[in-house]
Amino acid sequence: MRACGVVVEYNPFHNGHHLHVKQSRKESGRDVVIAVMSGNFLQRGEPALCPKRERAEMALCGGVDIVFELPYHFAVQHASIFAEGAVKLLDAAGCDSFCFGSESGQIEPFINQLVLEKKDFKQLQQTIHEQMQLGNSYPAAAAESYRLLFGDASGLDLSKPNNMLGYQYIRAADQFSDMTPYTIQRISSDYHDQSLDQSFISSATSIRKKIFEENLEAVSGHLPKDSCRVLSKFSQDSHFLNWEHFWPYLQHMLITSSPQELQTYYEVEEGIEYRLIEAALKSPSFDTFMQHVKTKRYTWTRIQRMLTHLITRTTREEIKQHKEPEYLRLLGMSRKGREYLSRYKKDFKLPVISNLNQQHHDLCAIDIRASKSYAMGFSDPLKRINMLTKDFTAPPVIH
Amino acid sequence: MRACGVVVEYNPFHNGHHLHVKQSRKESGRDVVIAVMSGNFLQRGEPALCPKRERAEMALCGGVDIVFELPYHFAVQHASIFAEGAVKLLDAAGCDSFCFGSESGQIEPFINQLVLEKKDFKQLQQTIHEQMQLGNSYPAAAAESYRLLFGDASGLDLSKPNNMLGYQYIRAADQFSDMTPYTIQRISSDYHDQSLDQSFISSATSIRKKIFEENLEAVSGHLPKDSCRVLSKFSQDSHFLNWEHFWPYLQHMLITSSPQELQTYYEVEEGIEYRLIEAALKSPSFDTFMQHVKTKRYTWTRIQRMLTHLITRTTREEIKQHKEPEYLRLLGMSRKGREYLSRYKKDFKLPVISNLNQQHHDLCAIDIRASKSYAMGFSDPLKRINMLTKDFTAPPVIH
Repeated sequence: MRACGVVVEYNPFHNGHHLHVKQSRKESGRDVVIAVMSGNFLQRGEPALCPKRERAEMALCGGVDIVFELPYHFAVQHASIFAEGAVKLLDAAGCDSFCFGSESGQIEPFINQLVLEKKDFKQLQQTIHEQMQLGNSYPAAAAESYRLLFGDASGLDLSKPNNMLGYQYIRAADQFSDMTPYTIQRISSDYHDQSLDQSFISSATSIRKKIFEENLEAVSGHLPKDSCRVLSKFSQDSHFLNWEHFWPYLQHMLITSSPQELQTYYEVEEGIEYRLIEAALKSPSFDTFMQHVKTKRYTWTRIQRMLTHLITRTTREEIKQHKEPEYLRLLGMSRKGREYLSRYKKDFKLPVISNLNQQHHDLCAIDIRASKSYAMGFSDPLKRINMLTKDFTAPPVIH
Repeated sequence: MRACGVVVEYNPFHNGHHLHVKQSRKESGRDVVIAVMSGNFLQRGEPALCPKRERAEMALCGGVDIVFELPYHFAVQHASIFAEGAVKLLDAAGCDSFCFGSESGQIEPFINQLVLEKKDFKQLQQTIHEQMQLGNSYPAAAAESYRLLFGDASGLDLSKPNNMLGYQYIRAADQFSDMTPYTIQRISSDYHDQSLDQSFISSATSIRKKIFEENLEAVSGHLPKDSCRVLSKFSQDSHFLNWEHFWPYLQHMLITSSPQELQTYYEVEEGIEYRLIEAALKSPSFDTFMQHVKTKRYTWTRIQRMLTHLITRTTREEIKQHKEPEYLRLLGMSRKGREYLSRYKKDFKLPVISNLNQQHHDLCAIDIRASKSYAMGFSDPLKRINMLTKDFTAPPVIH
């Protein structure tokens, strides 16, 4: 049995994801598909619509065989650390290939770009540095530097967000694994596109927007039936989460902390702590707070990640101590996934954690704390305490 | 002009308080009554029903001439530190007398008790220590030691809570001032009595209970008309506060903190931090949390004070740095109070702060943070941000 990996957030699992899983299996010709999925907080510094357990269940229904959790200290990070963590986990779980969606849809341009970059690595670093000195954010500086140095020599348009993320996978895989890369073309509107058109496949962003503005039913045409079922069951005794549910906790923390205390948290730096405190005093909502805080230098995403670290109380020191993945936390598996695991688990480069017990607590401390922080987003106090302990009591989802 | 001081919480200002003010003026024969009043968090470690500004207004309507705020680092403390801070402030504000309510109603037994205690001071300390070794809380140990050593030799029954608190004023005044003490008898049920009988005067505890269980109207017979008016106006665009409004913030803090972090906060000690974290994971409300946490060794009040320090993020280090009152924060004054201030303010032992400005921020840091934390208890986000800045923008209440 051979495995192909995918890196996902499934927030929520929609028709496009379903196609991606099917195509990954087909393109790679592997027997099982292993997903490394972010936990309750995501790469753009946002709480997931629903908990990781529900998202793992949707994934398994949609054809994924095994879901491992991408630990918080890789999941809530900019693209290159995110990609590095995810690729190392897939490699550790025995995948010999991985497949990602891109605007490009062809793997050659990615490989070409890698060759070009390796040749001019130093100059690229220098150009990115210069671009940032001009006041650009890192993603903007990187995109501009690639354009300046390589133009379209590789045939890869790195201004497209999914090409850029995919390229980070390629770079990480080249450095840290022997996995064969595959890519499939993303059908659908751009990642950032918030409009939900009549098409069968729409972006997760536009689906979430519609869910909050209207309801689950309004997006049912864009989700597999099983996703609808899982989300509908979840929302019956609970509610979908977004940043506004965490705003009171963030506000309380900001108005009672000194700038010096805030600086101990990961990514809070360069004096933005003063700006955060000042904005907290005058913002009735998370959205108005963000409007007060954002500047040209800081992308919305970078600020949101910083705030996620505050809500989960993740310090700079802690992140420094966890540069390498140390475990594979199993969230769920299909029958075939179970067979794969029982056959190959012993050869994995990292231990698999199926059920959290006391001895895992130190190892998984950040993930556990992130899960608990996420639980605070539920307005019903009983749901909150139910979620607070779920990570320790619930076994992996079996499909 | 001469001044008599009173130490109060006015949570809320009721008929008994009204009588106390009148009698204080009469018994002492002084021209003005100065109240030192706790801010938004009270001695028993509870948030006030309504903010200090509204409580100061009720006091002025009820005959008090000047209201100064008892700083947080004395207000949320056990009786002896509370009394020491309050007495020092009254003394600093030029009071030559003070008057408190007691079960005793006569000042002689208090003076007798002081003479007895001074004679046997060492033995008293020793006995209290022994009583605590037996597992008693400090208040219980102290009351039992007084009983064992002095019996009823002084004629003062120190098992009555108001006698004990009054006695702390007497001890502090003897040590730190030349003020003449007066006491008047409390008419009404015990301090802790929660039943609201048909009498004209009822305890603040029973009044608050009735307000939360029913409404403001149900207690109107026990409050001066002006108190009813102020409270009614307040509750029109807001709500009365209790610990349950702060529970989510406390829970978030407890589930994301390590025991080591919790230990840095004032009064969190002796391993109770582990108990707090464990209880936070299973408590849907503040009340169930308290049921999980309390033990024989810790009084309910002591635990609540500890939790107040967590909500306001008051550290052990900070409290250590503020052993002495450093300012008189003016919350409100009558015409006569204003005259007294303009005449004598220059001779006060401490500076009077009428309007907070930037240079006061370091001096009043704990009080400002406590006010901000209190603001988080309001469920309406707009009310919250209004309250978050009120301390800096609102001038003293003039009556």
